[in-house]
Amino acid sequence: MNAQQLFEQIKAKQSFLCVGLDTDINKIPEHLRKELFPYPEDVSTFHEVILQFNKAIIDATAPYTVAYKPNLAFYDAFGDIGMLALAKTCFYIKEHYPEMFVIADAKRGDIGNTSEMYAQQFFHAESSPYDAVTLAPYMGRDTVDPFLKYEDKWAVILALTSNPSADDFETLLLASGKPLWKQVLETASTWGTTDNTMFVVGATRAEQLKEVREIVPDHFLLVPGVGVQGGSLAEVARYGMNSRCGLLVNSSRAIIYADKTERFAQVAGEKAKEMRDEMAALLGGIIPSENYR
Amino acid sequence: MNAQQLFEQIKAKQSFLCVGLDTDINKIPEHLRKELFPYPEDVSTFHEVILQFNKAIIDATAPYTVAYKPNLAFYDAFGDIGMLALAKTCFYIKEHYPEMFVIADAKRGDIGNTSEMYAQQFFHAESSPYDAVTLAPYMGRDTVDPFLKYEDKWAVILALTSNPSADDFETLLLASGKPLWKQVLETASTWGTTDNTMFVVGATRAEQLKEVREIVPDHFLLVPGVGVQGGSLAEVARYGMNSRCGLLVNSSRAIIYADKTERFAQVAGEKAKEMRDEMAALLGGIIPSENYR
Repeated sequence: MNAQQLFEQIKAKQSFLCVGLDTDINKIPEHLRKELFPYPEDVSTFHEVILQFNKAIIDATAPYTVAYKPNLAFYDAFGDIGMLALAKTCFYIKEHYPEMFVIADAKRGDIGNTSEMYAQQFFHAESSPYDAVTLAPYMGRDTVDPFLKYEDKWAVILALTSNPSADDFETLLLASGKPLWKQVLETASTWGTTDNTMFVVGATRAEQLKEVREIVPDHFLLVPGVGVQGGSLAEVARYGMNSRCGLLVNSSRAIIYADKTERFAQVAGEKAKEMRDEMAALLGGIIPSENYR
Repeated sequence: MNAQQLFEQIKAKQSFLCVGLDTDINKIPEHLRKELFPYPEDVSTFHEVILQFNKAIIDATAPYTVAYKPNLAFYDAFGDIGMLALAKTCFYIKEHYPEMFVIADAKRGDIGNTSEMYAQQFFHAESSPYDAVTLAPYMGRDTVDPFLKYEDKWAVILALTSNPSADDFETLLLASGKPLWKQVLETASTWGTTDNTMFVVGATRAEQLKEVREIVPDHFLLVPGVGVQGGSLAEVARYGMNSRCGLLVNSSRAIIYADKTERFAQVAGEKAKEMRDEMAALLGGIIPSENYR
Protein backbone atom coordinates (compact mmCIF):
# COMPACT_ATOMS: atom_id res chain seq x y z
CA MET A 1 0.00 0.00 0.00
CA ASN A 2 1.33 3.47 -0.83
CA ALA A 3 0.46 6.82 0.75
CA GLN A 4 -2.20 7.65 -1.84
CA GLN A 5 -3.90 4.29 -1.36
CA LEU A 6 -3.89 4.84 2.38
CA PHE A 7 -5.45 8.26 1.86
CA GLU A 8 -8.13 6.69 -0.35
CA GLN A 9 -9.03 4.40 2.56
CA ILE A 10 -9.16 7.37 4.90
CA LYS A 11 -11.49 9.19 2.51
CA ALA A 12 -13.70 6.16 1.99
CA LYS A 13 -14.14 5.54 5.72
CA GLN A 14 -13.94 9.18 6.84
CA SER A 15 -11.53 7.90 9.46
CA PHE A 16 -7.83 7.93 10.26
CA LEU A 17 -8.27 5.62 13.24
CA CYS A 18 -5.77 2.84 14.02
CA VAL A 19 -6.91 0.35 16.65
CA GLY A 20 -4.10 -1.00 18.83
CA LEU A 21 -4.51 -4.72 19.45
CA ASP A 22 -2.53 -4.80 22.70
CA THR A 23 -4.38 -7.86 23.88
CA ASP A 24 -3.54 -8.79 27.45
CA ILE A 25 -4.98 -12.16 28.45
CA ASN A 26 -5.61 -10.79 31.96
CA LYS A 27 -7.85 -8.04 30.61
CA ILE A 28 -9.95 -10.22 28.34
CA PRO A 29 -13.56 -10.39 29.58
CA GLU A 30 -14.05 -13.12 32.15
CA HIS A 31 -16.87 -14.85 30.27
CA LEU A 32 -14.69 -15.25 27.17
CA ARG A 33 -11.81 -16.65 29.17
CA LYS A 34 -14.06 -19.12 30.99
CA GLU A 35 -15.81 -20.22 27.84
CA LEU A 36 -12.70 -20.74 25.73
CA PHE A 37 -10.10 -21.51 28.35
CA PRO A 38 -11.94 -23.66 30.91
CA TYR A 39 -8.84 -25.64 31.85
CA PRO A 40 -6.00 -23.17 32.49
CA GLU A 41 -3.55 -26.04 32.77
CA ASP A 42 -4.24 -26.95 29.15
CA VAL A 43 -2.48 -24.25 27.16
CA SER A 44 -3.44 -25.72 23.79
CA THR A 45 -6.56 -23.53 23.61
CA PHE A 46 -4.85 -20.47 25.02
CA HIS A 47 -4.18 -18.78 21.67
CA GLU A 48 -7.85 -19.30 20.79
CA VAL A 49 -8.90 -16.97 23.62
CA ILE A 50 -6.71 -14.15 22.34
CA LEU A 51 -7.75 -14.85 18.75
CA GLN A 52 -11.49 -14.89 19.49
CA PHE A 53 -11.20 -11.65 21.48
CA ASN A 54 -9.27 -10.00 18.62
CA LYS A 55 -11.70 -11.24 15.96
CA ALA A 56 -14.66 -9.83 17.88
CA ILE A 57 -12.91 -6.47 18.34
CA ILE A 58 -11.88 -6.38 14.67
CA ASP A 59 -15.37 -7.20 13.34
CA ALA A 60 -16.92 -4.54 15.56
CA THR A 61 -14.40 -1.78 14.78
CA ALA A 62 -13.53 -2.44 11.12
CA PRO A 63 -16.19 -0.11 9.66
CA TYR A 64 -14.60 2.83 11.51
CA THR A 65 -10.95 1.92 11.21
CA VAL A 66 -8.25 2.09 8.52
CA ALA A 67 -5.45 0.35 10.43
CA TYR A 68 -4.70 -2.18 13.14
CA LYS A 69 -1.56 -2.17 15.22
CA PRO A 70 -0.82 -5.26 17.33
CA ASN A 71 2.01 -4.61 19.78
CA LEU A 72 4.25 -7.65 19.59
CA ALA A 73 5.19 -7.56 23.27
CA PHE A 74 1.72 -8.80 24.17
CA TYR A 75 2.12 -11.83 21.91
CA ASP A 76 5.83 -12.51 22.37
CA ALA A 77 5.24 -12.73 26.12
CA PHE A 78 3.47 -16.04 25.51
CA GLY A 79 6.11 -17.55 23.25
CA ASP A 80 5.08 -19.71 20.32
CA ILE A 81 1.43 -19.71 21.48
CA GLY A 82 1.36 -15.92 21.43
CA MET A 83 2.99 -15.80 18.00
CA LEU A 84 0.38 -18.18 16.68
CA ALA A 85 -2.38 -15.93 18.03
CA LEU A 86 -0.72 -12.91 16.42
CA ALA A 87 -0.26 -14.56 13.04
CA LYS A 88 -3.84 -15.86 12.98
CA THR A 89 -5.13 -12.42 13.99
CA CYS A 90 -3.27 -10.65 11.20
CA PHE A 91 -4.24 -13.19 8.56
CA TYR A 92 -7.85 -12.82 9.72
CA ILE A 93 -7.63 -9.06 9.16
CA LYS A 94 -6.17 -9.42 5.67
CA GLU A 95 -8.63 -12.12 4.68
CA HIS A 96 -11.76 -10.27 5.79
CA TYR A 97 -10.64 -6.64 5.50
CA PRO A 98 -7.90 -6.60 2.83
CA GLU A 99 -8.00 -2.80 2.69
CA MET A 100 -6.63 -2.50 6.24
CA PHE A 101 -3.13 -1.19 6.95
CA VAL A 102 -1.53 -3.57 9.47
CA ILE A 103 1.34 -2.29 11.61
CA ALA A 104 3.54 -4.69 13.58
CA ASP A 105 4.41 -2.54 16.59
CA ALA A 106 7.72 -4.23 17.27
CA LYS A 107 10.04 -1.28 17.89
CA ARG A 108 12.90 -3.36 16.56
CA GLY A 109 16.31 -1.80 16.04
CA ASP A 110 19.29 -3.87 15.00
CA ILE A 111 21.84 -3.67 12.25
CA GLY A 112 23.15 -5.20 9.05
CA ASN A 113 22.53 -8.90 8.68
CA THR A 114 20.42 -8.91 11.85
CA SER A 115 18.12 -6.16 10.66
CA GLU A 116 17.73 -8.08 7.42
CA MET A 117 16.52 -11.08 9.41
CA TYR A 118 13.90 -8.92 11.14
CA ALA A 119 12.79 -7.44 7.82
CA GLN A 120 12.49 -10.99 6.51
CA GLN A 121 10.43 -12.01 9.54
CA PHE A 122 7.85 -9.32 8.89
CA PHE A 123 7.88 -8.76 5.13
CA HIS A 124 9.49 -11.62 3.24
CA ALA A 125 6.63 -14.05 2.75
CA GLU A 126 4.41 -13.17 -0.17
CA SER A 127 1.50 -13.78 2.17
CA SER A 128 2.91 -11.44 4.85
CA PRO A 129 -0.03 -9.73 6.54
CA TYR A 130 2.07 -6.74 7.67
CA ASP A 131 2.23 -3.42 5.85
CA ALA A 132 4.56 -1.75 8.34
CA VAL A 133 6.89 -2.28 11.29
CA THR A 134 7.82 0.23 13.99
CA LEU A 135 11.57 0.78 14.39
CA ALA A 136 13.84 2.53 16.92
CA PRO A 137 16.34 4.95 15.36
CA TYR A 138 19.18 4.88 17.92
CA MET A 139 21.65 2.83 15.82
CA GLY A 140 20.94 4.86 12.69
CA ARG A 141 20.19 4.08 9.09
CA ASP A 142 21.53 0.50 9.21
CA THR A 143 18.47 -0.33 11.30
CA VAL A 144 15.97 0.94 8.75
CA ASP A 145 17.44 0.23 5.31
CA PRO A 146 16.61 -3.49 5.09
CA PHE A 147 12.92 -2.73 5.67
CA LEU A 148 12.83 -0.16 2.86
CA LYS A 149 13.83 -2.78 0.29
CA TYR A 150 10.38 -4.34 0.34
CA GLU A 151 7.97 -2.76 -2.11
CA ASP A 152 4.75 -1.34 -0.66
CA LYS A 153 5.98 -1.93 2.90
CA TRP A 154 6.70 0.75 5.48
CA ALA A 155 9.18 1.62 8.20
CA VAL A 156 7.53 3.52 11.05
CA ILE A 157 10.33 5.28 12.91
CA LEU A 158 10.13 6.53 16.50
CA ALA A 159 10.66 10.29 16.68
CA LEU A 160 8.91 11.94 19.63
CA THR A 161 7.08 9.49 21.87
CA SER A 162 4.35 10.12 24.42
CA ASN A 163 5.86 8.43 27.48
CA PRO A 164 7.16 10.42 30.48
CA SER A 165 10.80 9.40 30.02
CA ALA A 166 10.86 10.58 26.40
CA ASP A 167 12.61 13.57 27.95
CA ASP A 168 15.58 11.43 29.00
CA PHE A 169 17.06 11.54 25.50
CA GLU A 170 14.55 12.40 22.74
CA THR A 171 14.18 16.04 23.72
CA LEU A 172 17.85 16.70 24.58
CA LEU A 173 19.18 19.78 22.83
CA LEU A 174 21.96 19.17 20.35
CA ALA A 175 24.89 21.50 19.78
CA SER A 176 23.08 22.63 16.63
CA GLY A 177 20.29 24.02 18.83
CA LYS A 178 17.81 21.36 17.70
CA PRO A 179 16.37 18.68 19.96
CA LEU A 180 17.40 15.11 19.10
CA TRP A 181 13.90 14.18 17.86
CA LYS A 182 14.03 16.91 15.21
CA GLN A 183 17.38 15.62 13.99
CA VAL A 184 15.88 12.12 13.80
CA LEU A 185 13.08 13.50 11.59
CA GLU A 186 15.51 15.44 9.39
CA THR A 187 17.98 12.60 8.93
CA ALA A 188 15.58 9.65 8.74
CA SER A 189 13.26 11.39 6.28
CA THR A 190 16.11 11.27 3.72
CA TRP A 191 16.42 7.47 3.89
CA GLY A 192 13.16 6.57 2.21
CA THR A 193 10.15 8.28 0.70
CA THR A 194 6.71 9.46 1.82
CA ASP A 195 5.48 6.14 0.41
CA ASN A 196 7.51 3.93 2.73
CA THR A 197 8.38 5.93 5.84
CA MET A 198 6.20 7.18 8.70
CA PHE A 199 7.14 8.71 12.03
CA VAL A 200 5.77 8.16 15.52
CA VAL A 201 4.81 11.41 17.25
CA GLY A 202 2.87 11.23 20.51
CA ALA A 203 -0.47 13.02 20.84
CA THR A 204 0.38 14.26 24.32
CA ARG A 205 2.69 16.70 22.53
CA ALA A 206 0.14 17.92 20.00
CA GLU A 207 1.44 21.49 19.87
CA GLN A 208 4.79 20.10 18.73
CA LEU A 209 3.12 18.56 15.69
CA LYS A 210 3.37 22.03 14.16
CA GLU A 211 7.16 21.81 14.43
CA VAL A 212 7.06 18.25 13.10
CA ARG A 213 5.19 19.47 10.02
CA GLU A 214 7.86 22.10 9.34
CA ILE A 215 10.37 19.24 8.90
CA VAL A 216 8.21 16.51 7.34
CA PRO A 217 5.20 18.24 5.76
CA ASP A 218 4.22 15.30 3.57
CA HIS A 219 4.95 12.18 5.64
CA PHE A 220 2.30 10.16 7.37
CA LEU A 221 2.56 10.27 11.18
CA LEU A 222 1.51 7.51 13.55
CA VAL A 223 0.11 9.24 16.62
CA PRO A 224 -0.39 7.25 19.83
CA GLY A 225 -1.50 8.73 23.13
CA VAL A 226 -5.05 9.84 22.31
CA GLY A 227 -7.42 8.53 24.97
CA VAL A 228 -5.94 6.91 28.06
CA GLN A 229 -2.73 8.94 27.75
CA GLY A 230 -4.72 12.19 27.50
CA GLY A 231 -4.04 13.54 23.99
CA SER A 232 -6.74 15.53 22.16
CA LEU A 233 -7.87 14.47 18.71
CA ALA A 234 -8.85 18.00 17.69
CA GLU A 235 -5.40 19.33 18.61
CA VAL A 236 -3.66 16.53 16.77
CA ALA A 237 -5.68 17.30 13.63
CA ARG A 238 -5.20 21.05 14.01
CA TYR A 239 -1.43 20.86 14.13
CA GLY A 240 -0.70 17.61 12.31
CA MET A 241 -3.11 17.16 9.40
CA ASN A 242 -1.85 17.74 5.85
CA SER A 243 -3.56 17.71 2.45
CA ARG A 244 -3.63 13.89 2.39
CA CYS A 245 -4.59 13.72 6.06
CA GLY A 246 -1.10 12.41 6.90
CA LEU A 247 -2.26 11.01 10.24
CA LEU A 248 -2.99 7.62 11.71
CA VAL A 249 -4.24 8.13 15.26
CA ASN A 250 -3.92 5.05 17.41
CA SER A 251 -6.17 4.12 20.28
CA SER A 252 -5.74 0.85 22.13
CA ARG A 253 -7.03 0.51 25.68
CA ALA A 254 -9.77 3.17 25.35
CA ILE A 255 -11.39 0.97 22.68
CA ILE A 256 -10.51 -2.66 23.27
CA TYR A 257 -11.03 -2.61 27.06
CA ALA A 258 -13.90 -0.09 27.11
CA ASP A 259 -16.21 -2.79 28.44
CA LYS A 260 -15.57 -6.05 30.27
CA THR A 261 -18.96 -7.68 29.89
CA GLU A 262 -20.47 -9.75 27.09
CA ARG A 263 -21.06 -6.44 25.30
CA PHE A 264 -17.28 -5.76 25.03
CA ALA A 265 -17.15 -5.93 21.24
CA GLN A 266 -20.28 -3.85 20.76
CA VAL A 267 -18.93 -1.16 23.10
CA ALA A 268 -15.55 -1.24 21.35
CA GLY A 269 -17.40 -0.63 18.07
CA GLU A 270 -19.31 2.28 19.63
CA LYS A 271 -16.10 3.85 20.91
CA ALA A 272 -14.47 3.46 17.50
CA LYS A 273 -17.52 5.01 15.85
CA GLU A 274 -17.36 7.98 18.24
CA MET A 275 -13.77 8.57 17.21
CA ARG A 276 -14.63 8.09 13.52
CA ASP A 277 -17.44 10.65 13.79
CA GLU A 278 -15.07 13.16 15.35
CA MET A 279 -12.49 12.36 12.66
CA ALA A 280 -15.04 12.76 9.86
CA ALA A 281 -15.75 16.29 11.09
CA LEU A 282 -12.02 17.06 11.32
CA LEU A 283 -11.48 15.70 7.80
CA GLY A 284 -14.17 18.03 6.44
CA GLY A 285 -11.66 20.70 5.59
CA ILE A 286 -9.53 18.56 3.28
CA ILE A 287 -12.04 16.16 1.74
CA PRO A 288 -14.59 17.56 -0.77
CA SER A 289 -18.11 16.73 0.25
CA GLU A 290 -18.74 14.58 -2.86
CA ASN A 291 -16.42 12.06 -1.28
CA TYR A 292 -18.67 11.66 1.73
CA ARG A 293 -20.88 8.63 1.74
CA MET B 1 23.92 -13.96 38.64
CA ASN B 2 25.54 -10.81 40.03
CA ALA B 3 28.70 -9.05 38.87
CA GLN B 4 30.95 -10.83 41.38
CA GLN B 5 29.63 -14.23 40.32
CA LEU B 6 30.25 -13.34 36.70
CA PHE B 7 33.80 -12.31 37.59
CA GLU B 8 34.29 -15.65 39.39
CA GLN B 9 33.38 -17.42 36.14
CA ILE B 10 35.78 -15.24 34.23
CA LYS B 11 38.55 -16.11 36.68
CA ALA B 12 37.74 -19.81 36.64
CA LYS B 13 37.81 -20.01 32.85
CA GLN B 14 40.43 -17.32 32.24
CA SER B 15 38.05 -16.01 29.64
CA PHE B 16 35.64 -13.14 29.07
CA LEU B 17 34.40 -14.56 25.79
CA CYS B 18 30.74 -14.43 24.81
CA VAL B 19 29.79 -16.54 21.78
CA GLY B 20 27.07 -15.04 19.62
CA LEU B 21 24.61 -17.71 18.48
CA ASP B 22 23.42 -15.84 15.37
CA THR B 23 22.45 -19.07 13.69
CA ASP B 24 21.42 -18.57 10.08
CA ILE B 25 19.95 -21.70 8.52
CA ASN B 26 21.60 -20.78 5.21
CA LYS B 27 25.04 -20.82 6.79
CA ILE B 28 24.72 -24.13 8.60
CA PRO B 29 27.08 -26.75 7.12
CA GLU B 30 25.53 -28.53 4.17
CA HIS B 31 26.03 -32.02 5.60
CA LEU B 32 24.08 -31.11 8.75
CA ARG B 33 21.24 -29.61 6.78
CA LYS B 34 21.02 -32.64 4.49
CA GLU B 35 21.19 -35.09 7.33
CA LEU B 36 18.57 -33.44 9.54
CA PHE B 37 16.43 -31.66 7.00
CA PRO B 38 16.24 -34.05 4.05
CA TYR B 39 12.76 -32.93 3.03
CA PRO B 40 12.71 -29.12 2.92
CA GLU B 41 8.97 -29.13 2.39
CA ASP B 42 8.53 -30.75 5.81
CA VAL B 43 9.23 -27.95 8.27
CA SER B 44 8.58 -30.09 11.32
CA THR B 45 12.28 -31.01 11.63
CA PHE B 46 13.50 -27.53 10.79
CA HIS B 47 14.09 -26.38 14.35
CA GLU B 48 16.11 -29.56 14.93
CA VAL B 49 18.73 -28.43 12.39
CA ILE B 50 19.26 -25.14 14.18
CA LEU B 51 19.22 -26.85 17.57
CA GLN B 52 21.74 -29.54 16.60
CA PHE B 53 24.07 -26.93 15.10
CA ASN B 54 23.82 -24.82 18.25
CA LYS B 55 24.37 -27.79 20.56
CA ALA B 56 27.52 -28.80 18.69
CA ILE B 57 28.86 -25.23 18.80
CA ILE B 58 28.02 -24.93 22.50
CA ASP B 59 29.64 -28.22 23.49
CA ALA B 60 32.79 -27.32 21.56
CA THR B 61 33.13 -23.75 22.87
CA ALA B 62 31.81 -24.05 26.45
CA PRO B 63 35.24 -24.69 28.06
CA TYR B 64 36.47 -21.33 26.72
CA THR B 65 33.32 -19.27 27.12
CA VAL B 66 31.48 -17.52 29.97
CA ALA B 67 28.45 -16.31 28.03
CA TYR B 68 26.24 -17.05 25.04
CA LYS B 69 24.28 -14.42 23.18
CA PRO B 70 21.63 -15.60 20.74
CA ASN B 71 20.36 -12.74 18.57
CA LEU B 72 16.61 -13.10 18.48
CA ALA B 73 16.27 -11.83 14.93
CA PHE B 74 17.73 -15.10 13.64
CA TYR B 75 15.06 -17.11 15.48
CA ASP B 76 12.10 -14.73 15.17
CA ALA B 77 12.58 -14.79 11.39
CA PHE B 78 11.28 -18.37 11.43
CA GLY B 79 8.26 -17.71 13.62
CA ASP B 80 7.16 -20.31 16.15
CA ILE B 81 9.66 -22.85 14.77
CA GLY B 82 12.51 -20.42 15.35
CA MET B 83 11.30 -19.60 18.84
CA LEU B 84 11.21 -23.28 19.66
CA ALA B 85 14.80 -23.68 18.46
CA LEU B 86 15.83 -20.69 20.58
CA ALA B 87 14.09 -21.91 23.73
CA LYS B 88 15.51 -25.41 23.38
CA THR B 89 19.00 -23.97 22.77
CA CYS B 90 18.90 -21.82 25.89
CA PHE B 91 17.49 -24.56 28.08
CA TYR B 92 20.25 -26.83 26.77
CA ILE B 93 22.86 -24.29 27.85
CA LYS B 94 21.40 -23.91 31.34
CA GLU B 95 20.98 -27.65 31.79
CA HIS B 96 24.51 -28.61 30.76
CA TYR B 97 26.43 -25.43 31.62
CA PRO B 98 24.46 -23.76 34.42
CA GLU B 99 27.33 -21.34 35.09
CA MET B 100 26.87 -19.64 31.70
CA PHE B 101 25.55 -16.10 31.39
CA VAL B 102 22.87 -16.11 28.69
CA ILE B 103 22.04 -12.85 26.93
CA ALA B 104 18.91 -12.51 24.79
CA ASP B 105 20.10 -10.04 22.17
CA ALA B 106 16.68 -8.60 21.47
CA LYS B 107 17.36 -4.84 21.42
CA ARG B 108 13.83 -4.29 22.63
CA GLY B 109 12.68 -0.82 23.57
CA ASP B 110 9.11 -0.09 24.48
CA ILE B 111 7.38 1.55 27.39
CA GLY B 112 5.16 1.09 30.42
CA ASN B 113 2.81 -1.86 30.25
CA THR B 114 4.40 -3.00 26.98
CA SER B 115 7.90 -3.07 28.39
CA GLU B 116 6.53 -5.08 31.31
CA MET B 117 5.24 -7.66 28.83
CA TYR B 118 8.70 -7.93 27.26
CA ALA B 119 10.33 -8.26 30.69
CA GLN B 120 7.82 -10.99 31.46
CA GLN B 121 8.62 -12.76 28.20
CA PHE B 122 12.30 -13.01 29.06
CA PHE B 123 12.47 -13.14 32.85
CA HIS B 124 9.15 -14.09 34.40
CA ALA B 125 9.22 -17.87 34.38
CA GLU B 126 11.19 -19.35 37.25
CA SER B 127 12.81 -21.59 34.67
CA SER B 128 13.77 -18.63 32.44
CA PRO B 129 17.13 -19.45 30.82
CA TYR B 130 18.00 -15.77 30.25
CA ASP B 131 20.24 -13.73 32.51
CA ALA B 132 20.08 -10.56 30.45
CA VAL B 133 18.31 -8.77 27.61
CA THR B 134 19.72 -6.06 25.34
CA LEU B 135 17.65 -2.86 25.25
CA ALA B 136 17.58 0.32 23.15
CA PRO B 137 17.62 3.56 25.18
CA TYR B 138 15.84 5.97 22.80
CA MET B 139 12.54 6.16 24.76
CA GLY B 140 14.31 6.53 28.09
CA ARG B 141 14.01 4.97 31.51
CA ASP B 142 10.47 3.63 30.95
CA THR B 143 12.04 1.10 28.59
CA VAL B 144 14.49 -0.27 31.12
CA ASP B 145 12.76 -0.13 34.53
CA PRO B 146 10.54 -3.21 34.17
CA PHE B 147 13.60 -5.38 33.46
CA LEU B 148 15.40 -4.15 36.60
CA LYS B 149 12.62 -5.48 38.84
CA TYR B 150 13.77 -9.05 38.36
CA GLU B 151 16.40 -10.15 40.84
CA ASP B 152 19.69 -11.40 39.41
CA LYS B 153 18.66 -10.38 35.88
CA TRP B 154 20.33 -7.73 33.76
CA ALA B 155 19.49 -4.94 31.35
CA VAL B 156 22.17 -4.53 28.68
CA ILE B 157 21.72 -1.03 27.27
CA LEU B 158 23.00 0.14 23.87
CA ALA B 159 25.45 3.02 24.25
CA LEU B 160 28.02 3.22 21.45
CA THR B 161 27.56 0.57 18.79
CA SER B 162 30.02 -0.69 16.19
CA ASN B 163 27.95 -0.24 13.03
CA PRO B 164 28.73 2.42 10.42
CA SER B 165 25.53 4.41 10.97
CA ALA B 166 26.14 4.72 14.71
CA ASP B 167 27.27 8.21 13.69
CA ASP B 168 23.77 9.14 12.54
CA PHE B 169 22.66 9.83 16.12
CA GLU B 170 24.79 8.14 18.82
CA THR B 171 27.80 10.39 18.33
CA LEU B 172 25.89 13.66 17.80
CA LEU B 173 27.18 16.44 20.03
CA LEU B 174 24.71 17.75 22.58
CA ALA B 175 24.43 21.39 23.64
CA SER B 176 26.29 20.33 26.80
CA GLY B 177 29.33 19.49 24.64
CA LYS B 178 28.96 15.74 25.24
CA PRO B 179 28.05 13.23 22.54
CA LEU B 180 24.67 11.53 22.97
CA TRP B 181 26.24 8.16 23.83
CA LYS B 182 28.02 9.66 26.85
CA GLN B 183 24.76 11.13 28.09
CA VAL B 184 23.15 7.70 27.70
CA LEU B 185 25.90 6.21 29.89
CA GLU B 186 25.58 8.98 32.49
CA THR B 187 21.80 8.89 32.71
CA ALA B 188 21.21 5.15 32.32
CA SER B 189 23.89 4.22 34.86
CA THR B 190 21.74 5.90 37.56
CA TRP B 191 18.72 3.67 36.86
CA GLY B 192 20.13 0.43 38.21
CA THR B 193 23.33 -0.90 39.74
CA THR B 194 26.55 -2.53 38.58
CA ASP B 195 24.83 -5.81 39.43
CA ASN B 196 21.96 -5.43 36.97
CA THR B 197 23.07 -3.03 34.22
CA MET B 198 25.62 -3.44 31.42
CA PHE B 199 26.34 -1.27 28.41
CA VAL B 200 27.06 -2.17 24.80
CA VAL B 201 30.22 -0.50 23.48
CA GLY B 202 31.58 -1.61 20.12
CA ALA B 203 35.15 -2.85 19.81
CA THR B 204 35.71 -0.93 16.59
CA ARG B 205 35.88 2.14 18.84
CA ALA B 206 38.32 0.70 21.36
CA GLU B 207 40.08 4.01 22.04
CA GLN B 208 36.75 5.41 23.21
CA LEU B 209 36.56 2.72 25.90
CA LYS B 210 38.86 4.97 27.92
CA GLU B 211 36.19 7.68 27.84
CA VAL B 212 33.55 5.08 28.66
CA ARG B 213 35.50 4.07 31.75
CA GLU B 214 35.63 7.68 32.96
CA ILE B 215 31.81 7.61 33.16
CA VAL B 216 31.13 4.00 34.19
CA PRO B 217 34.32 2.67 35.79
CA ASP B 218 32.65 -0.30 37.48
CA HIS B 219 29.98 -1.51 35.06
CA PHE B 220 30.36 -4.57 32.89
CA LEU B 221 30.50 -3.77 29.17
CA LEU B 222 29.30 -6.03 26.37
CA VAL B 223 31.71 -5.50 23.49
CA PRO B 224 30.76 -6.71 20.01
CA GLY B 225 32.80 -6.11 16.89
CA VAL B 226 35.94 -8.14 17.62
CA GLY B 227 36.71 -10.39 14.67
CA VAL B 228 34.69 -9.91 11.50
CA GLN B 229 34.04 -6.25 12.27
CA GLY B 230 37.75 -5.61 12.83
CA GLY B 231 38.12 -4.70 16.52
CA SER B 232 41.29 -5.66 18.44
CA LEU B 233 41.03 -7.69 21.63
CA ALA B 234 44.25 -6.22 23.07
CA GLU B 235 42.99 -2.68 22.56
CA VAL B 236 39.63 -3.49 24.11
CA ALA B 237 41.36 -4.92 27.20
CA ARG B 238 43.85 -2.06 27.36
CA TYR B 239 41.21 0.65 27.46
CA GLY B 240 38.20 -1.20 28.86
CA MET B 241 39.29 -3.70 31.52
CA ASN B 242 38.66 -2.87 35.18
CA SER B 243 39.58 -4.64 38.42
CA ARG B 244 36.80 -7.22 37.96
CA CYS B 245 37.52 -7.52 34.24
CA GLY B 246 34.28 -5.67 33.45
CA LEU B 247 34.22 -6.99 29.89
CA LEU B 248 32.29 -9.54 27.92
CA VAL B 249 33.70 -9.64 24.41
CA ASN B 250 31.33 -11.11 21.87
CA SER B 251 32.31 -13.02 18.77
CA SER B 252 29.73 -14.58 16.51
CA ARG B 253 30.55 -15.27 12.88
CA ALA B 254 34.32 -15.60 13.40
CA ILE B 255 33.61 -18.61 15.63
CA ILE B 256 30.38 -20.26 14.60
CA TYR B 257 30.99 -20.08 10.83
CA ALA B 258 34.78 -20.55 10.95
CA ASP B 259 34.40 -23.85 9.12
CA LYS B 260 31.66 -25.26 6.90
CA THR B 261 32.72 -28.90 6.84
CA GLU B 262 32.03 -31.77 9.23
CA ARG B 263 34.76 -30.26 11.43
CA PHE B 264 32.73 -27.06 12.01
CA ALA B 265 32.27 -27.63 15.75
CA GLN B 266 35.88 -28.62 16.29
CA VAL B 267 37.12 -25.53 14.44
CA ALA B 268 34.69 -23.33 16.39
CA GLY B 269 36.18 -24.77 19.58
CA GLU B 270 39.69 -24.06 18.32
CA LYS B 271 38.79 -20.45 17.46
CA ALA B 272 37.21 -19.98 20.90
CA LYS B 273 40.30 -21.47 22.55
CA GLU B 274 42.53 -19.06 20.61
CA MET B 275 40.51 -16.15 21.94
CA ARG B 276 40.49 -17.60 25.46
CA ASP B 277 44.28 -17.97 25.36
CA GLU B 278 44.67 -14.35 24.33
CA MET B 279 42.19 -13.34 27.03
CA ALA B 280 44.02 -15.35 29.71
CA ALA B 281 47.18 -13.39 28.93
CA LEU B 282 45.28 -10.10 29.03
CA LEU B 283 43.71 -11.06 32.37
CA GLY B 284 47.14 -11.72 33.87
CA GLY B 285 47.39 -8.21 35.22
CA ILE B 286 44.26 -8.36 37.35
CA ILE B 287 44.06 -12.02 38.39
CA PRO B 288 46.64 -13.32 40.90
CA SER B 289 48.43 -16.36 39.57
CA GLU B 290 47.04 -18.65 42.31
CA ASN B 291 43.72 -18.34 40.54
CA TYR B 292 45.12 -19.86 37.38
CA ARG B 293 44.35 -23.45 36.78
